[in-house]
Amino acid sequence: MDHISIKELLSKKPIGTTATVKGWVRNFRSNRFIALSDGSTIKTLQAVVNFENTPEEVLKKITVGACIKVTGDVVSSQGAGQDLEIQATGVAILGESNPEEYPLQPKKHSMEFLREKAHLRPRTNTFGAVLRIRHSLSFAIHQYFHERGFYNMHTPIITGSDAEGAGEMFNVSALDKKNIPLTEDGEVDFSEDFFGKETNLTVSGQLEAELGALALGKVYTFGPTFRAENSNTTRHLAEFWMIEPEVAFADLDDNMDLAEDFLRKVIKFALDNCADDIEFLSKRLEDEEKTKPQAERSEMSLKDRLEFVADNNFRRVSYTEAVEILRNSKPNKKKKFQYLINEWGVDLQSEHEKFLVKHFGCPVILYDYPATIKAFYMRLNDDEKTVRAMDILFPGIGEIVGGSQREERHDVLLQKMEEFGIDPKELWWYLDTRKFGTCVHSGFGLGFERLVLFVTGMTNIRDVIPFPRTPGNADF
Amino acid sequence: MDHISIKELLSKKPIGTTATVKGWVRNFRSNRFIALSDGSTIKTLQAVVNFENTPEEVLKKITVGACIKVTGDVVSSQGAGQDLEIQATGVAILGESNPEEYPLQPKKHSMEFLREKAHLRPRTNTFGAVLRIRHSLSFAIHQYFHERGFYNMHTPIITGSDAEGAGEMFNVSALDKKNIPLTEDGEVDFSEDFFGKETNLTVSGQLEAELGALALGKVYTFGPTFRAENSNTTRHLAEFWMIEPEVAFADLDDNMDLAEDFLRKVIKFALDNCADDIEFLSKRLEDEEKTKPQAERSEMSLKDRLEFVADNNFRRVSYTEAVEILRNSKPNKKKKFQYLINEWGVDLQSEHEKFLVKHFGCPVILYDYPATIKAFYMRLNDDEKTVRAMDILFPGIGEIVGGSQREERHDVLLQKMEEFGIDPKELWWYLDTRKFGTCVHSGFGLGFERLVLFVTGMTNIRDVIPFPRTPGNADF
Repeated sequence: MDHISIKELLSKKPIGTTATVKGWVRNFRSNRFIALSDGSTIKTLQAVVNFENTPEEVLKKITVGACIKVTGDVVSSQGAGQDLEIQATGVAILGESNPEEYPLQPKKHSMEFLREKAHLRPRTNTFGAVLRIRHSLSFAIHQYFHERGFYNMHTPIITGSDAEGAGEMFNVSALDKKNIPLTEDGEVDFSEDFFGKETNLTVSGQLEAELGALALGKVYTFGPTFRAENSNTTRHLAEFWMIEPEVAFADLDDNMDLAEDFLRKVIKFALDNCADDIEFLSKRLEDEEKTKPQAERSEMSLKDRLEFVADNNFRRVSYTEAVEILRNSKPNKKKKFQYLINEWGVDLQSEHEKFLVKHFGCPVILYDYPATIKAFYMRLNDDEKTVRAMDILFPGIGEIVGGSQREERHDVLLQKMEEFGIDPKELWWYLDTRKFGTCVHSGFGLGFERLVLFVTGMTNIRDVIPFPRTPGNADF
Repeated sequence: MDHISIKELLSKKPIGTTATVKGWVRNFRSNRFIALSDGSTIKTLQAVVNFENTPEEVLKKITVGACIKVTGDVVSSQGAGQDLEIQATGVAILGESNPEEYPLQPKKHSMEFLREKAHLRPRTNTFGAVLRIRHSLSFAIHQYFHERGFYNMHTPIITGSDAEGAGEMFNVSALDKKNIPLTEDGEVDFSEDFFGKETNLTVSGQLEAELGALALGKVYTFGPTFRAENSNTTRHLAEFWMIEPEVAFADLDDNMDLAEDFLRKVIKFALDNCADDIEFLSKRLEDEEKTKPQAERSEMSLKDRLEFVADNNFRRVSYTEAVEILRNSKPNKKKKFQYLINEWGVDLQSEHEKFLVKHFGCPVILYDYPATIKAFYMRLNDDEKTVRAMDILFPGIGEIVGGSQREERHDVLLQKMEEFGIDPKELWWYLDTRKFGTCVHSGFGLGFERLVLFVTGMTNIRDVIPFPRTPGNADF
């Protein structure tokens, strides 16, 4: 291609040469200074137009959102905040943008407005930064596992098993909804559907990842997962991406070590590789915080918070210890919690998780939960009351990781399935791994968008995925 | 963890030290020699048991498929094909495997049988190799794009737009199939469904990737895509993974350059990083070929074929030239083609693609196809008869990549949509990119499983994805 990206130009600084850049006009002032963006970096390039030598019909088409090509001399810049600029000798309009119609004007738009313009919002500073960071985190995750001998495994999206019980599922079908075939008993006859049985969108690749780990040793998934839950919150999506590593011969301690090291390393990768974007979002968050009362503001800037997490150990606390702390806490005694903690065995709510993170001042790993509030596949401790589960709680995000050591004993697993009302025939293949060469193994799930939320400092999960799917919304 | 992987042990060769390994028994002969696999590599480790010092109840549980832990002295091996072995001082059974029941015995199983045991087949040499290569190709793809400034973009899986027309779609719904709500006109009332409208599983992320490219410059997707087509072939899956790069300011020549360089580099990565697995599969294919008549056998081994593709340029041929070659070819003149090529404008069939690849003896890029047989979004050439489309044809695989320069002109695109019967209102957001700062851009789609087929030499696409989804089959 005959042009150079703005990122490359700003990094190579070829002062004294001629260069061609292509991108979209962010701003054009004094009929002279173009701020040009090509998305390769958050930085814009200043192109200086000699309006006396530029035809009037070109000048008037240099509007916000227009796509242009600029050729000129690369020179040192006198302006603040930029090392170089380009003195245009030629400007060509590649794609016009009618300023009366273009929705993204150089002013502050609300997040709600931009969600309705999700097809254009990657052109804004904020969403450009979020998407570049999202990419970096995605790459860091693949690299982290690859370098440590994990194999990426593509577990199925369409699943015929609905046994995991992680949440409401979307049905996948090729049946004609106006002519649903019924059996003699009046039930839907899924034998006539595409797969010959009822199928849904996956809620987790874990069970299949376990099959992989018990063959290849260390595997991880990175794929979309789904919940048909009517949750209109800032933390839930109907379609989101999940990372699920699974490791043979790893117990819960190994699992916590892996999850902690993994999170710290990928955050460090973002800090090292997305400095400009994080700086921009850090500043953005600071401005946003200024509109809040002093007491609600974060003590740390986004960048400081990321560095703190990357550099410091997480605090590991058993469920039992956590419940003691909560029971004796001020908000519990003063009945400020919505759900008061009176006895061991209750599930912890978001308010409790937030309290614990504040209490310890760092990410917290809670482990050894009551068996009754966790999934059937988690390994029962010798106390027969708790399971080897762990959740990682992050400041401002709450639960970011959930994992466990898996029940590897065939008889215990079978009994747990019965207790949970899961038909062993549905999961014959899962049970087979406990019959043939079973072993201790562990894994966890990371909600990718929650990680992106944390690293970008955004406050609504709909703003960290290009095209969010939520109840009532599947646009674009 | 207290053990070392077999891959690491074989690469570090810590002769003279004590080591612990964990894995699954592949074979146990003479009550003395265990072939142990842990999936980290295709190679097994020989563990030599001193049966006089090993309890009888342990010895009898060292059966095929059992999971064991072996501690012992790492020594140089006298046997052929292995540098080292472990002289066991301790063997512990972690998970038994009843030899009467374990389906994977140390003999050759048919691919059909193993598909029914998809939960265990990653434990075989062939599928272990395929899955490790699949991982390496996946990583190579992410690395290739990351190093070249592309941003990974997660385009939606559930889509409300059915306008692309790339194939039959699966419907996604949370409606109760036994009580489908109907409108007054007797149509399905999707306004009562989860998303408030009819939604399907995506057939391609391209249109959304274009939105990304026109903001960030260079993006790529890597995600699952779906076809509800009743194709029971060795080349089709209902659920498969696709890679779709999209590049602003790239024309069709840039697109062909990118696709060719990309394919050659990722194949090179597999050759460099999966030598053992490719050697095994190369040998496997050779054995398989020996059962065929001489004339049908490949001229090159798998490894030679991969090296040939990695090292040589692809041949670029216009559709018009290709049709001339086909029209004058022997099989056409002797009426051996099922579909005879008589005139310009017809779609090429698999038999024609195969002929062209054989004719040129290398991968072929066909370009500039008739507009009538290609999608609405491909850029019309000045001849107004052909579009800037390209397909890459691979030996033994046929079409592996399909791409195009996209129609960037609003008026031409609108007219094409009308001709193709696509409602512009459905794709208002796609059209917007042509209204606001449009530019030349191009991209392509790579069917990931077809690439894995090519690199592994497997012959059925169901054998290169962990859990294949095909008509009538959504097990595991």
